[in-house]
Amino acid sequence: MNTFGRLFRLTSFGESHGEFIGGIIDGCPSGIQLDFERIQFELDRRKPGQSKIVTQRKESDLVKFLSGIYEGKTTGMPIGFQIPNEDQRSKDYEHIEDVFRPSHADFTYSKKYGKRDVRGGGRSSARETANWVVAGAIAKQILPHIKINAYVSSVGDLFLEKPYQELDFSKTETSIVRCPDAEISEKMIQKIQEVRKEGDTIGGTVTCVIQNVSIGLGEPIFDKLHARLAQAMMSINAVKGFEYGSGFCGTKMKGSDHNDVFNEDGTTKSNLSGGIQGGISNGMDIYFRVAFKPVATLMQNQTTINSKGEKVEMQGKGRHDPCVVPRAVPIVEALSAMVLLDFVLLNNSRKV
Amino acid sequence: MNTFGRLFRLTSFGESHGEFIGGIIDGCPSGIQLDFERIQFELDRRKPGQSKIVTQRKESDLVKFLSGIYEGKTTGMPIGFQIPNEDQRSKDYEHIEDVFRPSHADFTYSKKYGKRDVRGGGRSSARETANWVVAGAIAKQILPHIKINAYVSSVGDLFLEKPYQELDFSKTETSIVRCPDAEISEKMIQKIQEVRKEGDTIGGTVTCVIQNVSIGLGEPIFDKLHARLAQAMMSINAVKGFEYGSGFCGTKMKGSDHNDVFNEDGTTKSNLSGGIQGGISNGMDIYFRVAFKPVATLMQNQTTINSKGEKVEMQGKGRHDPCVVPRAVPIVEALSAMVLLDFVLLNNSRKV
Amino acid sequence: MNTFGRLFRLTSFGESHGEFIGGIIDGCPSGIQLDFERIQFELDRRKPGQSKIVTQRKESDLVKFLSGIYEGKTTGMPIGFQIPNEDQRSKDYEHIEDVFRPSHADFTYSKKYGKRDVRGGGRSSARETANWVVAGAIAKQILPHIKINAYVSSVGDLFLEKPYQELDFSKTETSIVRCPDAEISEKMIQKIQEVRKEGDTIGGTVTCVIQNVSIGLGEPIFDKLHARLAQAMMSINAVKGFEYGSGFCGTKMKGSDHNDVFNEDGTTKSNLSGGIQGGISNGMDIYFRVAFKPVATLMQNQTTINSKGEKVEMQGKGRHDPCVVPRAVPIVEALSAMVLLDFVLLNNSRKV
Amino acid sequence: MNTFGRLFRLTSFGESHGEFIGGIIDGCPSGIQLDFERIQFELDRRKPGQSKIVTQRKESDLVKFLSGIYEGKTTGMPIGFQIPNEDQRSKDYEHIEDVFRPSHADFTYSKKYGKRDVRGGGRSSARETANWVVAGAIAKQILPHIKINAYVSSVGDLFLEKPYQELDFSKTETSIVRCPDAEISEKMIQKIQEVRKEGDTIGGTVTCVIQNVSIGLGEPIFDKLHARLAQAMMSINAVKGFEYGSGFCGTKMKGSDHNDVFNEDGTTKSNLSGGIQGGISNGMDIYFRVAFKPVATLMQNQTTINSKGEKVEMQGKGRHDPCVVPRAVPIVEALSAMVLLDFVLLNNSRKV
Repeated sequence: MNTFGRLFRLTSFGESHGEFIGGIIDGCPSGIQLDFERIQFELDRRKPGQSKIVTQRKESDLVKFLSGIYEGKTTGMPIGFQIPNEDQRSKDYEHIEDVFRPSHADFTYSKKYGKRDVRGGGRSSARETANWVVAGAIAKQILPHIKINAYVSSVGDLFLEKPYQELDFSKTETSIVRCPDAEISEKMIQKIQEVRKEGDTIGGTVTCVIQNVSIGLGEPIFDKLHARLAQAMMSINAVKGFEYGSGFCGTKMKGSDHNDVFNEDGTTKSNLSGGIQGGISNGMDIYFRVAFKPVATLMQNQTTINSKGEKVEMQGKGRHDPCVVPRAVPIVEALSAMVLLDFVLLNNSRKV
Repeated sequence: MNTFGRLFRLTSFGESHGEFIGGIIDGCPSGIQLDFERIQFELDRRKPGQSKIVTQRKESDLVKFLSGIYEGKTTGMPIGFQIPNEDQRSKDYEHIEDVFRPSHADFTYSKKYGKRDVRGGGRSSARETANWVVAGAIAKQILPHIKINAYVSSVGDLFLEKPYQELDFSKTETSIVRCPDAEISEKMIQKIQEVRKEGDTIGGTVTCVIQNVSIGLGEPIFDKLHARLAQAMMSINAVKGFEYGSGFCGTKMKGSDHNDVFNEDGTTKSNLSGGIQGGISNGMDIYFRVAFKPVATLMQNQTTINSKGEKVEMQGKGRHDPCVVPRAVPIVEALSAMVLLDFVLLNNSRKV
Repeated sequence: MNTFGRLFRLTSFGESHGEFIGGIIDGCPSGIQLDFERIQFELDRRKPGQSKIVTQRKESDLVKFLSGIYEGKTTGMPIGFQIPNEDQRSKDYEHIEDVFRPSHADFTYSKKYGKRDVRGGGRSSARETANWVVAGAIAKQILPHIKINAYVSSVGDLFLEKPYQELDFSKTETSIVRCPDAEISEKMIQKIQEVRKEGDTIGGTVTCVIQNVSIGLGEPIFDKLHARLAQAMMSINAVKGFEYGSGFCGTKMKGSDHNDVFNEDGTTKSNLSGGIQGGISNGMDIYFRVAFKPVATLMQNQTTINSKGEKVEMQGKGRHDPCVVPRAVPIVEALSAMVLLDFVLLNNSRKV
Repeated sequence: MNTFGRLFRLTSFGESHGEFIGGIIDGCPSGIQLDFERIQFELDRRKPGQSKIVTQRKESDLVKFLSGIYEGKTTGMPIGFQIPNEDQRSKDYEHIEDVFRPSHADFTYSKKYGKRDVRGGGRSSARETANWVVAGAIAKQILPHIKINAYVSSVGDLFLEKPYQELDFSKTETSIVRCPDAEISEKMIQKIQEVRKEGDTIGGTVTCVIQNVSIGLGEPIFDKLHARLAQAMMSINAVKGFEYGSGFCGTKMKGSDHNDVFNEDGTTKSNLSGGIQGGISNGMDIYFRVAFKPVATLMQNQTTINSKGEKVEMQGKGRHDPCVVPRAVPIVEALSAMVLLDFVLLNNSRKV
């Protein structure tokens, strides 16, 4: 249950306020030269404290590899790794010991598992996603030809309306909100700062575009490429929805408008299918959108209950993201890379 | 890849125009008295030819059980079953032999697997979902206390705007489009008939509400309840999106509006969480929405290509659904039941 | 639990006295031309009634394929198949309804699952192994270069002492006991006939030799090639032991005698390793030995208990094998082929 | 492939000469009070340098837990742990860089994975088994009523002939060779010392007895209890064979002698079945025997080849076990505990 993937697999561990989080990457092909700076770069994109619109928890998020790599190359053996938790302030959580924060996992974890590690949300914290970024960064390096670009496509009711074809993905990292359009990016940043001042939070969406995928990835019937992408994205904290290709908008259309007509080379004129037909990649761009709810932890006081069912007043304190989407961008990319690599390995396996 | 579930598992086989489709249900608890009429009732809800707004292919869809049942009760052994294909008209497909239908799986299956069984779409046909309904009908009987009610919530741009709390689910089956609101149901039926007359098709959405779920189903980190529901729903033919709880709408909200405040008994005043927090059921209603694109097969001529990359004109013929959502309702329910039972078994396993 | 394999997978169903047994083979590469006569030939090697020293139950064991094959070739889709049970004489089992036969699965199945299908041993019957032979026969055809030869190496205390290198495997099928040495074969047949006359049964061993295996099959740490072979063989009814290479004899040796010295081409002078080092095939012959206990069903009266814990006298009747090893030979080969193919597919998957 | 178990799962990493080895235990029930001294005690039983008849590599083998435990109790979250490698002397391996040691995994790993970490055997080293002992020690604590006792039953041709019922298992730990019979223990120690002086090694067997197992563990058809025990034991370095109950001896017997006659309470008078019938525990003692070949690393010079296929002379140096069975005893117990717990969890899951 803490393992992701079938052939390229991440098994992870760690709580928000333990000494380390970490994981084991299994099934990694051997002989892959790793670019460690690139791995760290991906972690830096996700790490807290990177800008004024994210949580101010300070973590250097330096990953240390413990096995499976020899002279800079993968050996085919499992890759153990760990990331220290440096700036845990468990005292920040003393006031919520025994308190169920609204719309958090406190209540359900407590009922399912009994006594729990409340500090920083324990295992339910998004801190875990740093592990995914490590595995995803390695997966990306094994599939260098595949281009995976995620970006923030909305914050609250501010939407980036342009189709992805009109965007310059190289601009995404120049924006602290990770929206590649300068104008809308600026508005999003302002919106997040306003919300933060109110001690409030706000939701948003991340769009991801995957290009140069070969034809044939995905396995019918129960391992369709988009179904595995959906499962992956729905695993990210705060995600409430997933759509690919025409998505929910496509439900309003007629078939005669929706069908993607073929060119003679097998590409299609339109791409409402989103690069996947029958669960299998068709070589066109894969694109999807992920919905994130507003963060549940507010810098406002809230009324809630404790484990005895007593009403309690909870202070708004600690360090939290007013909006998760900027930091979610590298996570969406990492999971995409892991899903794709897994399907590449599965597809390879069939060739006898 | 043709297996669904971890402990309660369906492995299925079959093409649209073979002699049989069928499957093996493994991991079913023993000693369960089965109501075979109820299983057949669920199959009848899904079967073609049931009304004027669905495909006119005639299948009695009578399931035959081959093992794992003794004197009407499950024995704990795998339950083999098969459903005959009676009304396959393979001749209807001669004209598309070697043709890639737009927005179908023909192209991707062909590129991935080489020569394929084109008749009726082969394995990529939604005929396969009859197998799921069998497994889901059994799962439902093992969880009689859980209420699973799906219904059509939109066809094209006709939306059932009422919240599910105001609906009478017992009305769903009285409507051939499976929308429990009589007025909007009538409009949807008209819309589908119009579209059909044009030889066209149209998309829609199905909403599913699951009630009386005990607290604690779902497994962090990679087997969150909503992630498995998403994967399941995204496996259904023509699905392009999934959202649960506040879904994509929730992305526009602030945390102070979105948080579900606790009552003293652990229930919540609102339920934007959709009955799941941290990937685990919290005892509130689970609800989600599934987006279906318009069916790709039209009763209009279309230009497309064949396997040699030559442009060809394709006639619109055969028997097809102008809109899949009415028949998708029992499929959504079946998959929901399978996912829930799987998590019930997983949850049981931890109690030593 | 009724699924075998990771990438090439058999999921099976069926009881001894149901209408059919059968299974679904998933993960089979596409485009493989199948030789159906060869599949039937393997089933005939296993089937009851084939000679005077096996059970006289008469089954034609004709397999029928239901999906996954088109114009004689695999399509990459799951292969559903079924085999009818023709000669079930359920009346033969009326006398043991509610009786726990000694050293059978009656007691444990009953305690674990409650009421069970007693007829013919239900699911615990070795009839199930016919399903394995189907899957194994297909696996063999996908790996035509690999030679898998099993044979009976002992019956009771009659041992075929010759090393396998001195045997002519083409003789195995000419012997009804499936021992390739004519002299010892004759003695084994006599021994089994004697035992049968006494209404008794006897144990034996099967040796299997696998040749032309490429280097590199098997996955450390928990999917070692010999560990998966062991698991497979221990799944066969009546098996009590497994050894490969030097096996139990090797425990008495010193390292200086046991080590296999390399030739310059990477082959080894001796092969006490049994073709596997560190869980991975090294290109030398793989060989192992499987121990079968005497069949528990006797044609003698036995005292036992019923489900109420009452002492009962049980008559010896029905149709049973006096010694299972002759019919076990194709089963051992089939499982070997399935294990090898699974590892070939796994090994392929790593090549990016 | 580096994951063991279905519901109670160990995923492990680490090479002999890395900084750490370690693993992640997933699926552990929550609320289990752990006895950390007991875990360390099990590691101490396995650790090198513990007596004069084992390798003199010095490792304190202190395990550090990184997650999944709160206030001494399991939380249901994955348990990350690591064990430092303290006394790696990688220089000892410079002379074999690029050399394929006879009957080692060097050749197969090299061919399968390409360039490898040769130091100490890398991943193929039995150092990995320390990880298993950690997981097994936790499994034992979750099943306190089950008694698992392994012991050395032979070294070379010195056999402990007494049936296990006549042994006092509390004596096992008083013997450095872990044979509970004082007289034969003394002979075994002498034998190992003689062999060591010669720079040679010797094989042996470990017997394991599991008592107080409830009826019903094990899952037909492909997860029989003994099949999973076999797979587990065959995963241990140097193992060549496995037998349970009557094992290979049983093949010589007649059914009338081999059948275990029932007492009226469902126990059996004899127990040649070894506590398992039809793959499911019957409540009687489970016992099995595991064959270990002599260690391949000798303190003698050996002729072998290098990766270029050139003949090379290899010096006998380093620190190695002359006989692995004394240190294998806790490993056999650990794996047994893991297998049993996994089946307990699986069995629990079915109760709805």
